[in-house]
Amino acid sequence: MSDQQDLTAYIAAFVAELSITGVKDVVISPGSRSTPMALVIAEHPELRTHILVDERSASFFALGIAKATRKPVALLCTSGTAAANYYPAVIEARISRVPLIVLTADRPHELRDVGAPQAIDQIHLYGKNVKWFVEMSLPDKTEEMIRYARTVCSRAVATASSYPQGPVHLNFPFREPLIPKLDEKLFELTDRTGRYVEIQTGRISLSDAMFARIAEELAVYKNGMIVCGQIDSDDFTERVLALADILKFPIIADPLSQLRSGEHDGRHIVDTYDAFLRNEDAKEALKPDVIIRFGAMPVSKALTTFIKENRHARQIVIDSGAGWREPTMSANDMYYCDEALFCEKISSLVDYVPETAYLDKWLALNDTARHQLIGIADTEELSEGKLFHLLNEMLPEGATLFVGNSMPIRDLDSFFLFNKKKIRVMANRGANGIDGIVSTAIGVASVSQPCYLVLGDLTFYHDLNGLLASKLYAININILLINNNGGGIFSFLPQANEPKHFEMLFGTPLDLDFRHVVAMYKGKYDLIKDWTHFSKTFTENQHVEGLKVMEIRTTRESNMTEHRNLWKSVSREISAMVKGDET
Amino acid sequence: MSDQQDLTAYIAAFVAELSITGVKDVVISPGSRSTPMALVIAEHPELRTHILVDERSASFFALGIAKATRKPVALLCTSGTAAANYYPAVIEARISRVPLIVLTADRPHELRDVGAPQAIDQIHLYGKNVKWFVEMSLPDKTEEMIRYARTVCSRAVATASSYPQGPVHLNFPFREPLIPKLDEKLFELTDRTGRYVEIQTGRISLSDAMFARIAEELAVYKNGMIVCGQIDSDDFTERVLALADILKFPIIADPLSQLRSGEHDGRHIVDTYDAFLRNEDAKEALKPDVIIRFGAMPVSKALTTFIKENRHARQIVIDSGAGWREPTMSANDMYYCDEALFCEKISSLVDYVPETAYLDKWLALNDTARHQLIGIADTEELSEGKLFHLLNEMLPEGATLFVGNSMPIRDLDSFFLFNKKKIRVMANRGANGIDGIVSTAIGVASVSQPCYLVLGDLTFYHDLNGLLASKLYAININILLINNNGGGIFSFLPQANEPKHFEMLFGTPLDLDFRHVVAMYKGKYDLIKDWTHFSKTFTENQHVEGLKVMEIRTTRESNMTEHRNLWKSVSREISAMVKGDET
Repeated sequence: MSDQQDLTAYIAAFVAELSITGVKDVVISPGSRSTPMALVIAEHPELRTHILVDERSASFFALGIAKATRKPVALLCTSGTAAANYYPAVIEARISRVPLIVLTADRPHELRDVGAPQAIDQIHLYGKNVKWFVEMSLPDKTEEMIRYARTVCSRAVATASSYPQGPVHLNFPFREPLIPKLDEKLFELTDRTGRYVEIQTGRISLSDAMFARIAEELAVYKNGMIVCGQIDSDDFTERVLALADILKFPIIADPLSQLRSGEHDGRHIVDTYDAFLRNEDAKEALKPDVIIRFGAMPVSKALTTFIKENRHARQIVIDSGAGWREPTMSANDMYYCDEALFCEKISSLVDYVPETAYLDKWLALNDTARHQLIGIADTEELSEGKLFHLLNEMLPEGATLFVGNSMPIRDLDSFFLFNKKKIRVMANRGANGIDGIVSTAIGVASVSQPCYLVLGDLTFYHDLNGLLASKLYAININILLINNNGGGIFSFLPQANEPKHFEMLFGTPLDLDFRHVVAMYKGKYDLIKDWTHFSKTFTENQHVEGLKVMEIRTTRESNMTEHRNLWKSVSREISAMVKGDET
Repeated sequence: MSDQQDLTAYIAAFVAELSITGVKDVVISPGSRSTPMALVIAEHPELRTHILVDERSASFFALGIAKATRKPVALLCTSGTAAANYYPAVIEARISRVPLIVLTADRPHELRDVGAPQAIDQIHLYGKNVKWFVEMSLPDKTEEMIRYARTVCSRAVATASSYPQGPVHLNFPFREPLIPKLDEKLFELTDRTGRYVEIQTGRISLSDAMFARIAEELAVYKNGMIVCGQIDSDDFTERVLALADILKFPIIADPLSQLRSGEHDGRHIVDTYDAFLRNEDAKEALKPDVIIRFGAMPVSKALTTFIKENRHARQIVIDSGAGWREPTMSANDMYYCDEALFCEKISSLVDYVPETAYLDKWLALNDTARHQLIGIADTEELSEGKLFHLLNEMLPEGATLFVGNSMPIRDLDSFFLFNKKKIRVMANRGANGIDGIVSTAIGVASVSQPCYLVLGDLTFYHDLNGLLASKLYAININILLINNNGGGIFSFLPQANEPKHFEMLFGTPLDLDFRHVVAMYKGKYDLIKDWTHFSKTFTENQHVEGLKVMEIRTTRESNMTEHRNLWKSVSREISAMVKGDET
């Protein structure tokens, strides 16, 4: 049987190692079984603890910190369904490749599957959605088991951090008594005071011969394009720009590629393709013979369709995570290689191309479409599209823009165009859920300021509990709530043609006045009356601390009409232009 | 490839069968991939649909209906993390044996694990926490596949309903286009218009020879007790009372045994054991030689300890679900047999015992403890214990009382004593989570009126989203919110002796004024000032529709002091009494 000394020594060694390996933040949900781990973590001088009662919100909050810092964040909860509430965030972390260390307390073996309180089967609780699962031993202070606690910890952090990053799950059985002995020497390690095992993760790379072959093959193509989906690496940005410049390939830049903002000149950036790739003339004019893809599959459905329609082109996908981000079944080549390294190597091997007509065509069409799209600035009514256009102008330097799924991410794609500010754009695009968005954004905001979140009313409602973190930890967050009273995206889908049951099943108006809930969380709430009021409040709020919600009420119908009209006007201009070129 | 005809015919057959097999309620969360199933369900004239955006709340709401009706309830959501949000309720349903039919829409095979949007691995998403998982075929209108859809549906409902009841999961891959053709003949079945397979589930029973042996063996024991944990079956109540009367065994009745309320005379019911089994003199006086247990393990820790301390006694556990509800490692015999049937058979085989001193001892101690406990009625301050005492008197005939975990269930155990009203008492005691309680109770309320929910502030906060159902569907629910600003139970646990970090990790005050959120959901809110105000509001609210929240503010410290003082006074009286008996 383990006693207080076993408990204390074993957990202290684990927690000491957690900090040594670089974990800074632990998000804890209160509970009894997790007491020993919670107390020891709270006692550690270098771990920052965040206590959040709703485990679903807690796990998305942790996801947000990990996304923003690209470093593993630990989560701790008690036994039972508490741990099951982590499931959505764990899946999102797995697919969007975010490092999380999930620590769950459990009943010891003799209290499992026998009807004991708060006991569920926690072995492989998250199935294949974690990179690694370990059922830990009971606490034990022998030297061997202290080494075990430290090496498992070190390995867990390394596994979560190595590419593709992702969640790991360690399940800790604890017997009563659950109270460790806290004293000053708690974290004094008797053996190897640094990291127990120094773990170095190399970058995945192809051989020089293979790079040479790829470079040689690329020289054949005249009409090449680079597609960048969600990717968040400083190295990569610089190098893909260099590669595009050498090859004179346009970069089709998803809003989450981090290429639509920044200090570079944006010479090769195409950012309005979602509008003009709906036009047949444009698609005909832009047929590529090679497509090089980096990052996740972009948001734009028009782009996905274009890729699928060009299966004759050589399609190359580069993925440092050695996955299969390729739903189009178009790829000819899948290169498992660090993306920045790939760009660097190929750039050094191919000849500089002074210019290509193909790039010029993309850029010209992009200019034309951009000209139409920014016409949205003239809209007097409150509109979802114009909001993103304005954000482009108004977001302060260094801001993070977090965007909800469903409509906001699509409007971001359409209207948040290239700018020279340093804006980091984020979203939960692993599983594209409407769950946990508030918490993820507030997690981001806890380590990255200023932070702006744009989301719809259903998404806001889904994670209202997430607002608590802002109140408890005085985290500044600017929420731009687009309230069209229901699920706006369905108006764009075939469901909209079936009026029977439409409002009930898809429109789903909630009729909630969110002013109340913002008051409960001690936030500042403003119902935006018009764009002047918006600008004024936006500016004013930059000097207000804590939670700030600006609600922008729109209607689903007018939003759809506005989008359709814009796409039509883009299409008209694009057709005129393409046909003008031909004559 | 499947087309609209395949889609329509296959799903219509499935949904027709769902209704034929007796499913009445479907809780749907909006989404795109689930469109065909949602539209066909909405079209069915006999299925009642409930649309709830937050899948976690939706699934607990479904759990509530299923608990109250003891009939399977269907759940439907779209692909992605939507389905992962069902996990806590699925686990609760599995452990507390509640029938749920979980229907999840999924991407078709070619869009899985390739980075397509909103696609996660849904195969065996809930692991071992469902009784049955089926990856459905793609929609197909051939006669063979219509038979397949109908038989799988029929089998799913039967599997969920048979003992032990529990959740099943059917995963439906759907390809675009997702719109079925709704017409008048949608649910016309061409073959077997009734249930496709008539499934009859028998009751589990021992052989007559075995019953005879058990009856014979029971005759040997003088000091026998019956322990009833959570169980909810009308048959059982009557028969266990008859058995107790024949054997003259006391029934130690957990508040969830449904034995503490009802029209019977309560002659053998012991309901204050949690108070007096903390006393060594009582425990010494009450040593049993046989313990017969039915239902889940009771809430009372004092009772569990007493059972463990009496391993010399013959301990018999009866479980119709053929599980292992036995964390004490004390059972000598485990009988997998329908509980009502067991009582009936044994009653018919054993001789009538006119009286036992052992029963008299239990009842005398129970009377003494009861006398002390109802002294709480004199408390002038707002107190958690007195609330349950008052509910005993004030709850209207036929009410359902739903109780949150952590402190409320324990106060229920201590203070909600035997009464002759028809009160059904419910709680989520599978995994004892603080998640989903509001939704479960509102699900119960949607089919059983009047309904009262007593819960603490952390539990209320955890599922605030659950309040939406009351607003959307005008469901009457009376919420008695005990707000002690944090986790009250920890004051009773050893953690309370560690002042360092206590408030941060365990006290966790949220400092929320819930008045605001009740206003958002258009509910009636009252902050209770004193017991007179409580009575007045309680009575008044019986004539108010919709959501009603009565907030009772208490302090964790005074609650703990009150409980400790009461236990002490019970113990003093009990000791005096036991010693008096001996002299």
